[in-house]
Amino acid sequence: MKLPPGISDSVFNSAVREFERAVGKDWVYTSAADLDLYRDAYSPFKGEEEERLASAAVAPSSVEEVQAVVRIANQYKIPIYPISTGKNLGYGGSAPNLSGSVVLDLKRMNRVLEVDEANASCLVEPGVSYFDLYRHLQANGSRLWIDTPDPGWGSLIGNALDRGGGYTAAKYRNHFDAHCGMEVVLANGEVLRTGMGALPGARTWQQYKSGFGPWIDGLFSQSNFGVVTKMGFWLMPQPDGYLAGRVEVFQYEDLIPLVDIMTNLENNGIYTGMPMLDVPLINPGLLPGESLRAPPPAEVQTLLGKPGGPAPAELEAYCKQHDVGLWGCKFQYYGPEDIVRAQWAYTMKRLSVIAGARFSEPEFYNLPLTPEQVDKVHKVTFGIPNLEMFFIGARSPTNPNPTRGHIWFSPIIPRNGREVFKAQRVFSEASRQLGLPVFPLAMATTYWERAFIFIFGFPITDDIELNRRNRAAFRELVRIGAENGWGEYRTAPAYQDAIMATYSFNNHALLRFHETVKDAIDPNGIIAPGRYGIWPKHLRGNKA
Amino acid sequence: MKLPPGISDSVFNSAVREFERAVGKDWVYTSAADLDLYRDAYSPFKGEEEERLASAAVAPSSVEEVQAVVRIANQYKIPIYPISTGKNLGYGGSAPNLSGSVVLDLKRMNRVLEVDEANASCLVEPGVSYFDLYRHLQANGSRLWIDTPDPGWGSLIGNALDRGGGYTAAKYRNHFDAHCGMEVVLANGEVLRTGMGALPGARTWQQYKSGFGPWIDGLFSQSNFGVVTKMGFWLMPQPDGYLAGRVEVFQYEDLIPLVDIMTNLENNGIYTGMPMLDVPLINPGLLPGESLRAPPPAEVQTLLGKPGGPAPAELEAYCKQHDVGLWGCKFQYYGPEDIVRAQWAYTMKRLSVIAGARFSEPEFYNLPLTPEQVDKVHKVTFGIPNLEMFFIGARSPTNPNPTRGHIWFSPIIPRNGREVFKAQRVFSEASRQLGLPVFPLAMATTYWERAFIFIFGFPITDDIELNRRNRAAFRELVRIGAENGWGEYRTAPAYQDAIMATYSFNNHALLRFHETVKDAIDPNGIIAPGRYGIWPKHLRGNKA
Repeated sequence: MKLPPGISDSVFNSAVREFERAVGKDWVYTSAADLDLYRDAYSPFKGEEEERLASAAVAPSSVEEVQAVVRIANQYKIPIYPISTGKNLGYGGSAPNLSGSVVLDLKRMNRVLEVDEANASCLVEPGVSYFDLYRHLQANGSRLWIDTPDPGWGSLIGNALDRGGGYTAAKYRNHFDAHCGMEVVLANGEVLRTGMGALPGARTWQQYKSGFGPWIDGLFSQSNFGVVTKMGFWLMPQPDGYLAGRVEVFQYEDLIPLVDIMTNLENNGIYTGMPMLDVPLINPGLLPGESLRAPPPAEVQTLLGKPGGPAPAELEAYCKQHDVGLWGCKFQYYGPEDIVRAQWAYTMKRLSVIAGARFSEPEFYNLPLTPEQVDKVHKVTFGIPNLEMFFIGARSPTNPNPTRGHIWFSPIIPRNGREVFKAQRVFSEASRQLGLPVFPLAMATTYWERAFIFIFGFPITDDIELNRRNRAAFRELVRIGAENGWGEYRTAPAYQDAIMATYSFNNHALLRFHETVKDAIDPNGIIAPGRYGIWPKHLRGNKA
Repeated sequence: MKLPPGISDSVFNSAVREFERAVGKDWVYTSAADLDLYRDAYSPFKGEEEERLASAAVAPSSVEEVQAVVRIANQYKIPIYPISTGKNLGYGGSAPNLSGSVVLDLKRMNRVLEVDEANASCLVEPGVSYFDLYRHLQANGSRLWIDTPDPGWGSLIGNALDRGGGYTAAKYRNHFDAHCGMEVVLANGEVLRTGMGALPGARTWQQYKSGFGPWIDGLFSQSNFGVVTKMGFWLMPQPDGYLAGRVEVFQYEDLIPLVDIMTNLENNGIYTGMPMLDVPLINPGLLPGESLRAPPPAEVQTLLGKPGGPAPAELEAYCKQHDVGLWGCKFQYYGPEDIVRAQWAYTMKRLSVIAGARFSEPEFYNLPLTPEQVDKVHKVTFGIPNLEMFFIGARSPTNPNPTRGHIWFSPIIPRNGREVFKAQRVFSEASRQLGLPVFPLAMATTYWERAFIFIFGFPITDDIELNRRNRAAFRELVRIGAENGWGEYRTAPAYQDAIMATYSFNNHALLRFHETVKDAIDPNGIIAPGRYGIWPKHLRGNKA
């Protein structure tokens, strides 16, 4: 068992006994078998000394128990690592930044505390998963949708705090932006509520985000400043219908106007769903992070494998010959049939300035879907949580290159076609040099309005030497990305220091600000030391 | 001249000389005539000792000069009160919370630093007003709109930091939410950038809000934690058209389904503009904060003046007899004609479940408007800054009850019809008892999605005794609001302590958190002591 740094066996054991008194003996885990469950199944350090391991786990059932646990941790100076529920695969699992931390597992706090049907919102605890909320709404005959990521076993709160995204309408897809109101247990054991929740008796906690005075919610995302014990979310009322239409364009440079028009339409609210850019000549309609469903035709593989990548003219020639688009985009619309058809018609009109643009017959569903329709669709597009992503995931037999897992490398890229070309070139060249899988036509993803993100599932293997090389390669990609102005939006603990270091404006002024806040509100540095690169004073020299 | 508390004449004079060295003698103001310009024209303390007055004002022209000023203030422990540009009428003007503070006037930092036409965003300095940005865009042939409050002389940054709102599409109307990226000078004189701005060379500062790690932007809104020197905003591309349609309903309780349907449509993005609830029998189409354009008919005045307010049945009888709606709502749509007409048709269909609902012929414009059309419309609906609100404002001869000014009383109310009824009753009864103007059918405003807000222009007069009574009445309304769970979203310095005190969950845990942060990042407490109720340690006993 790994103990927290500087903590003796006897102090640790005293703390564990106190935890047991606070939450009950059954809910404090110290056996190797129990702690195995908190290891990161996709750890890049598997089998190495550096793997981050918990010393124990504590699972409180209420805010009061969380407060008690935090107070004990403070008294004994034991680092605690709060997690919610789900797996967090690819972003570090449940394993702490600092080995020896006690995992504060909030899975038992799994109540849906409130659903406001007319105002389309909910208030939940950290242990509530997308599945839980979905079932709760279904069981109560609600007509509210949720916005769920792939997969659906994650926590609404955990995902939002890590600033994850989903697949429905834009204003619900950015999970942190779609939250309204928090309850937080601070490192001193005190509980506060943000926004209108700070006004006793207010029934607008889930209606107005910022309350009065500084709006502090953002502090508790991607950080270690507190333990979030309740959070409100805005939900989407079930729309009347859904329409999806696809456009294909055939010239390399067509991506530039395609992106500009897509952006313009989005900023005017012409479509509400997620626009999905793709590369039809390889495999149309790939979802973010999805592996190829089938290898592309041999001729395409040859093209993609050319040193330096395929030339635009070669791609265009192939597309012309095979009558397949070079770039594509699926536009999605939620709403009554008359409206979404008018929106798709207008979208086609605007895209028609791209010579040769070809449009699909749109797919349209009245909602709710029939059970037969549910079986066929991309469920998360309709707010239905599921685990189907794993059929095409790292270990799936349908994956042509199965691995043990992956870590997401996910830099933010400027939203324009030229920058996509540049990112394709830069990351392909870097991947080639680093011996990584090369995706010369990697495509930007659009979870959020306004920004592009590139998402690569970085392979984790059972080969320690290969993992070491890949870790070095990951860091190199981070460096190359930053050099080009492309910074990551999120990462696993293994890389949080390295990535935070790239956000270095004015000698790391932002990180130093975080450290000042950390020292003030958590002077013993007990909450998640090192998370997102923020170390407490006494460990600041230790960081990776 | 008021000096900062505990600062001697000679220390103050030394600091002023240092300020002069930092920004140039011409840009440090100490004469009574100059300082008069920083008084609050709508001060509720006019002619009284308590009026909040600046000791001096300093107007830097660059971030470096701001840093220099902050460092000098720190060295001499002189409180500084940052302002941007515009008047902030009704919310405290430019006068500091703490008399004797030096106003840090950022009006000279008035550059539009960047406009990204394709991605519809801008980066501006604090001195840039809505007029400035509008003119800049027009001069450069941009097709981007701005979202401006009434009036247009305010600062984009100042308004957003105070969490003000405008009149165009929902995603641009909440000015703080529509910002993306900040540059802040901290109390120690250091400059930091938030979001992607922390990554040197990133061109996504205005595309992705939260960057990596804790998202701290909210800390700098309605606070005194730093001096914001740059801020990015998302802008709305000019839509193809605009449609407005009105519904009138005739039964008292019809407000309940009207609000629910309005909310449901909004949460599904069926309309994009601001829905404007009104009371047709009094005067249809009043704008928030607007006084009556003409007194209502005598019969209505009699009804409204009844002790305890008009009974629902009486209102319904009047409406039936005069064929005028009891409640109304204007729905607004931005977009191509086919789409907005389909959206209005669907809106009517949904509202038709309210028996007797009557719909207007919609008003439709292709955009841009012709100059003749611009003259006639509510300009801010089309993103055109102006000062027309003053024609119907406090001192206007067209106002039937002219005053010297007003302070906004603006509590957040739950979004449902029953709660509007309750708020109407509670505030009418309170106003009657307190001798204030009574608005028995005051209507909720919808600047923001999800929440309602009540807005009352609280009169300020030249009569000191009356002002004293009104100040006490304001505090009483704050208390009564809080008792009912209705908290204010913003207020003038005179009431910031009182309102912050109502956000009291767990013995003021939120305020105590703010104080902890304040002490850590501004240990000398030099930035805007007292703003939004946050006092530095050495003044915490002094607060009002």
